[in-house]
Amino acid sequence: MSELAAAPADTRPYSPGLEGVIAGETSLSYIDGEAGRLLYRGYPIGELVHRGSYAAIAELLWTGEWIADAKLPCLPVSEPVLTALRALPADARPMDALRTAVSVWGAVTNPSWPPTPEQARALTASSPSALAAFARIRQGLEPVAPDPDLDLVAGFLYQLNGVKPEAEAARALDAYFVVGAEHGFNASTFTARVITSTRSDIASAVCGAIGAMKGPLHGGAPSEVVEQIHEVGSPERAEAWVRDAIANNVRLMGFGHRVYRAYDPRAAALREVAESMEHKPDWLELAIAVEDVALRVLAEKHPDRALKTNVEFYAAPVLMGVGLKPDLFPAAFALARHAGWTAHAIEQGANNRLIRPDVRYVGPGARPLAEA
Amino acid sequence: MSELAAAPADTRPYSPGLEGVIAGETSLSYIDGEAGRLLYRGYPIGELVHRGSYAAIAELLWTGEWIADAKLPCLPVSEPVLTALRALPADARPMDALRTAVSVWGAVTNPSWPPTPEQARALTASSPSALAAFARIRQGLEPVAPDPDLDLVAGFLYQLNGVKPEAEAARALDAYFVVGAEHGFNASTFTARVITSTRSDIASAVCGAIGAMKGPLHGGAPSEVVEQIHEVGSPERAEAWVRDAIANNVRLMGFGHRVYRAYDPRAAALREVAESMEHKPDWLELAIAVEDVALRVLAEKHPDRALKTNVEFYAAPVLMGVGLKPDLFPAAFALARHAGWTAHAIEQGANNRLIRPDVRYVGPGARPLAEA
Repeated sequence: MSELAAAPADTRPYSPGLEGVIAGETSLSYIDGEAGRLLYRGYPIGELVHRGSYAAIAELLWTGEWIADAKLPCLPVSEPVLTALRALPADARPMDALRTAVSVWGAVTNPSWPPTPEQARALTASSPSALAAFARIRQGLEPVAPDPDLDLVAGFLYQLNGVKPEAEAARALDAYFVVGAEHGFNASTFTARVITSTRSDIASAVCGAIGAMKGPLHGGAPSEVVEQIHEVGSPERAEAWVRDAIANNVRLMGFGHRVYRAYDPRAAALREVAESMEHKPDWLELAIAVEDVALRVLAEKHPDRALKTNVEFYAAPVLMGVGLKPDLFPAAFALARHAGWTAHAIEQGANNRLIRPDVRYVGPGARPLAEA
Repeated sequence: MSELAAAPADTRPYSPGLEGVIAGETSLSYIDGEAGRLLYRGYPIGELVHRGSYAAIAELLWTGEWIADAKLPCLPVSEPVLTALRALPADARPMDALRTAVSVWGAVTNPSWPPTPEQARALTASSPSALAAFARIRQGLEPVAPDPDLDLVAGFLYQLNGVKPEAEAARALDAYFVVGAEHGFNASTFTARVITSTRSDIASAVCGAIGAMKGPLHGGAPSEVVEQIHEVGSPERAEAWVRDAIANNVRLMGFGHRVYRAYDPRAAALREVAESMEHKPDWLELAIAVEDVALRVLAEKHPDRALKTNVEFYAAPVLMGVGLKPDLFPAAFALARHAGWTAHAIEQGANNRLIRPDVRYVGPGARPLAEA
């Protein structure tokens, strides 16, 4: 063996970004981008939004059981989590605060291996309280204790605003949480599975997942949808604004998707909830008007391209409509995705195998340090 | 489109655990398991331990430059990090404390995209101070401020124990940090790259990596080596103990490795440092005696199997020798790996592409919820 021989050429096939590589198996969700179809454990997302709550969908993902009247009230924030959140600067990113809260939660609860539905319930019901607490602390307000009579999404809004939400607003946000709960091996869910595959704990998995979702290539930039809808200003101006934007090659935010060529079934489900509201927030009214015009003009100008509404388009008005500040949108998405992340941790742990790809070395050949 | 048609069979090839799949390229390290060879940017690990310090190796990984006299003193722990660490229970796992410290560090510093050597230096020099602070706080002791005249590893020991370490002890731990700094696409480094690939920040990447390393399938169980060496008790008993263990099918901890068939070059480098010490801690003396006997007896009993010393075998006596409690070993490994994790974050960010594999659906076929 010569330590100074050059590294041999690596002739193994290279899959950049692992695109198209099947890294694992799941029973949790099925995505058909061509048909615009999303199933959780076989059930269509539209039916789930229509008949279920986030608590019921989370239980379905964790246990496989459909319990239509399942409840999952928010849990109180523990003192160590609250102390850590109070110590953060007021201008800290909410995703950083949420990641920190989950890390402290893990340090306090020390979840055992393998991940369980009990652990998933406890973490999923703690994080909304922690995010709401941070959102109040940074404004100089005191956190509000959770109301055990409210289900998770209504309970989150209550802790955020200090008043019980209107039923329709809670229902709209619950629908958003349902459609955001799970979506296959995106980068954050894959991160959670890689971490779990080392036999690490569920809090470590969700911490890593939050960090991955924080990246704009994954968590997106929902505030850009807000800015565009804000620019439109009123339903009457929608037609002129959209035509002007397309004429000037401005990209319409909230249309087109990596996977979905058809209308994103999550956007369809959210629109249905939005349209059924008796008192729509102005934001929703405006978004529906903009969408109608945008789809019509996009089909007219780009008949060859599959530019349909994606879930981000409706996430923005729903989140604005229930009173969330735009910088909380990514963290709200992360709260919704807790159900999926933790369900994937349970699924990985139940049939575990270390996830560990290889890497190709492309650096300098072997060389003596003495000559450096 | 029928929402109730069964999911079509997925015929794409499946790579369980991504074993043998090349997920990316790196210039940071090259591993040749057959020859027992590890190079950082082309330089053999043995030479790096012999001629360099952890600070120099970290700079080499971050920038590609070899600066033999590079310095990287520990940085003070910020108030928010200290407050979060004080809020943790005294029996919290040190890896959970370290993950939390990195999360708060990220919330406070808000590192921009893409990851840079400056960010890598700041985080790598902050984490040892945070871990040392937690190790003191949990014993009811006050944290010790870092000494700017001490380099990173000596400075870590100083903050841990409150007294300046002996030069030989600091040198032994520095060698451990050098050999632990980087090792290709293990699960934690891969986690850091997946997180970075979403354009998330360096703190999110290291948070996720710590969570992955926490799992025993990755971070290992170095305390088991300690227990075995402790059982041996004295060099004179080594021969009898090892023969007895092998006769009773007790697995000898610290021998054999997934990648290395030859003597692990990291173990070789640590042994060289250990043997050159004028005043070896008892733990090192004992470990060297046990290793000599174990290699001889393993070769005699299993001549067909490549059971050579691995890095864990020497990690344990070095860490014990410098006074670390066994439950701090995984976190000390994580401190050492900061250089590699952050270097991979820089490398990923410099030529980024989202890492996102696919998943095969194996759950129930499409079914109506109404019948659930």
